[in-house]
Amino acid sequence: MVGGGQLARMTHQAAIALGVGFEVLAADPLESAAQVVRQAVIGNHDDLADLRLFAERCDVITFDHEHVPTSHLRTLRDEGVVVRPGPEALENAQDKLVMRATLTQAGIPCPMWAVVGTADDVAEFAVAAGWPVVLKTARGGYDGKGVTLVDDVNQAQTVLDAATPGTRWLAEQKVPFIRELAVQVARSPHGQAAVYPVVQTTQIDGICREVIAPAPIDDDVALAAQDIALLVAQTLEVTGMLAVEMFQTSEGVLVNELAMRPHNSGHWSIDGAVTSQFEQHLRAVLDLPLGSTSALAPFSVMANVLGGHHPDMYRAYLHCMARDPGLRIHMYGKDVRPGRNVGHVTVVGEDLDDLLERARHGAAYLTGDITE
Amino acid sequence: MVGGGQLARMTHQAAIALGVGFEVLAADPLESAAQVVRQAVIGNHDDLADLRLFAERCDVITFDHEHVPTSHLRTLRDEGVVVRPGPEALENAQDKLVMRATLTQAGIPCPMWAVVGTADDVAEFAVAAGWPVVLKTARGGYDGKGVTLVDDVNQAQTVLDAATPGTRWLAEQKVPFIRELAVQVARSPHGQAAVYPVVQTTQIDGICREVIAPAPIDDDVALAAQDIALLVAQTLEVTGMLAVEMFQTSEGVLVNELAMRPHNSGHWSIDGAVTSQFEQHLRAVLDLPLGSTSALAPFSVMANVLGGHHPDMYRAYLHCMARDPGLRIHMYGKDVRPGRNVGHVTVVGEDLDDLLERARHGAAYLTGDITE
Repeated sequence: MVGGGQLARMTHQAAIALGVGFEVLAADPLESAAQVVRQAVIGNHDDLADLRLFAERCDVITFDHEHVPTSHLRTLRDEGVVVRPGPEALENAQDKLVMRATLTQAGIPCPMWAVVGTADDVAEFAVAAGWPVVLKTARGGYDGKGVTLVDDVNQAQTVLDAATPGTRWLAEQKVPFIRELAVQVARSPHGQAAVYPVVQTTQIDGICREVIAPAPIDDDVALAAQDIALLVAQTLEVTGMLAVEMFQTSEGVLVNELAMRPHNSGHWSIDGAVTSQFEQHLRAVLDLPLGSTSALAPFSVMANVLGGHHPDMYRAYLHCMARDPGLRIHMYGKDVRPGRNVGHVTVVGEDLDDLLERARHGAAYLTGDITE
Repeated sequence: MVGGGQLARMTHQAAIALGVGFEVLAADPLESAAQVVRQAVIGNHDDLADLRLFAERCDVITFDHEHVPTSHLRTLRDEGVVVRPGPEALENAQDKLVMRATLTQAGIPCPMWAVVGTADDVAEFAVAAGWPVVLKTARGGYDGKGVTLVDDVNQAQTVLDAATPGTRWLAEQKVPFIRELAVQVARSPHGQAAVYPVVQTTQIDGICREVIAPAPIDDDVALAAQDIALLVAQTLEVTGMLAVEMFQTSEGVLVNELAMRPHNSGHWSIDGAVTSQFEQHLRAVLDLPLGSTSALAPFSVMANVLGGHHPDMYRAYLHCMARDPGLRIHMYGKDVRPGRNVGHVTVVGEDLDDLLERARHGAAYLTGDITE
């Protein structure tokens, strides 16, 4: 797995159970995954020579993030390296313009969107889509970065002017959503697919904070969302896990973003599903038969633990374990910085209100937002 | 953790989630746990210098087996090393005579037993206990080794004559049990204890083959078994996980064997309980608050995967995943040798008969005992 973050760290847990060899290419020996695997390879994910050396140790290479240049991946593939997901699929997770064009061509419902280059383009788009408009850079956005809401043509001008020359932009309608949803799908090279229950996600400042599995939505909405996710996986020929983030609107479900790897919105599956998304990703990229995506309990709630202002979380950790023996705590071994994802908590059970209270309390207490 | 076997390997999975540093002292870099931890320390568990060097890296040392000499542990403790469980407790897991004497003194129900040195001692014991008699060496027994059933005084003589001079023996009644049970208890240094549901275990040739959680027994039997296990943990001042193997008889529950570490009879808890025995062991030895021992489903069934005659299990592995997407497969990274524990499978759900069929099929197919 290229990338040494928490996704690789949690994938290692799954690799241990499956009994498959697991190697990590990390930028630094102190990265989250590098702390826990046998011997992380240290190198840069955008350096072809580093990737090549890493790939020599592996039967298959996969990713804990989407930042590996697809040109390098094409080169490696030409040299015989098995790359899953492949560069053509990954392009859609790296470039929002490519993704929107591909999905739209396949008839997959997306928010209204357009390629824009100037503030006038944005204004023209707003005639149909209305203000505010969501301006996105085609590349480089994650956790809310690269995404700006503009209220009028002047703000659009300011945002475009501030960008690096050559930045490619798209404008998207600000969707009046009922809630945000996400669907995890696994797809293996020979085409087997498995879809997880649809989850509800809550973003604050562009960062995922809370996930409810399954989303409290009608069955027909859930089925429509799962169908869309499966269609995206098939259309893009994804191998491995695909997370499709969506908006639920009064008129149906629209695709927002894609991630081709285990994703924050699927972390609940470690404690709440028969097969975690991390194990499923390994099964998929290794072309093993996929595991059951069934939930183990009526509801699971996951909340992210963000870094707060207390670098030492040990007392909070003790408190949370003592207060709630059912709280599943996952720490990523990362230094605490305000707003940084340093762990997550999950609770599973029957009473959603109770689970929400417990997950929110655990996350807020660990962050330091509350002290009782 | 001293010892690099599968228990340390699975404990590492739990350590990753808890975000605690985890080091292993392994005899060989290819041992099960050494394959998956960052940098296993290679050394001998019975060499004081190796133990001392290892302990310097750790805040607490604990064990994946019971074979570390308690004299070394006393020395380390005198030097300031935190050893959990402590040598006095471990003595009871190493020496069956010590264990029987301690438990009997505490009023904990055991099979009829006696210290024996000669065949005449055995014959005398058999007057009250009846033939056959179970002859056990005080030390060194596991997985059926060090345990022999003798039918008469001549067989007893043969067994005693074949042993290394100086071997200490005890005779035990062959208990007419209804079934074998096991109870997992965690106990932390400040005395918090948590007990898991009682499980039924099936041994074949002295090796655990199958575990049903919870055991299909009446509540009063289960409560009695849990009470005994808690009393054993308290009496011996165990820290960490304790597995108490028991016989259920028509007249009550009797203690058979003890293990002071995560134990095969608790592997179901990885997939079937809120907190696995591996995480619980870490919480206990680190004096963290203990986690919930609740089951996630009405039943869990675990079956051990023994090595068969096919060194390469890959095709069987594919088959089992494809046949049963709900089968949880855990492989230990060990070379296949006939009869060696190389993994386990677990299934969780509501229908015990269905779960038994699936777990048995998975284990037998992986072993190579069946081919369809």
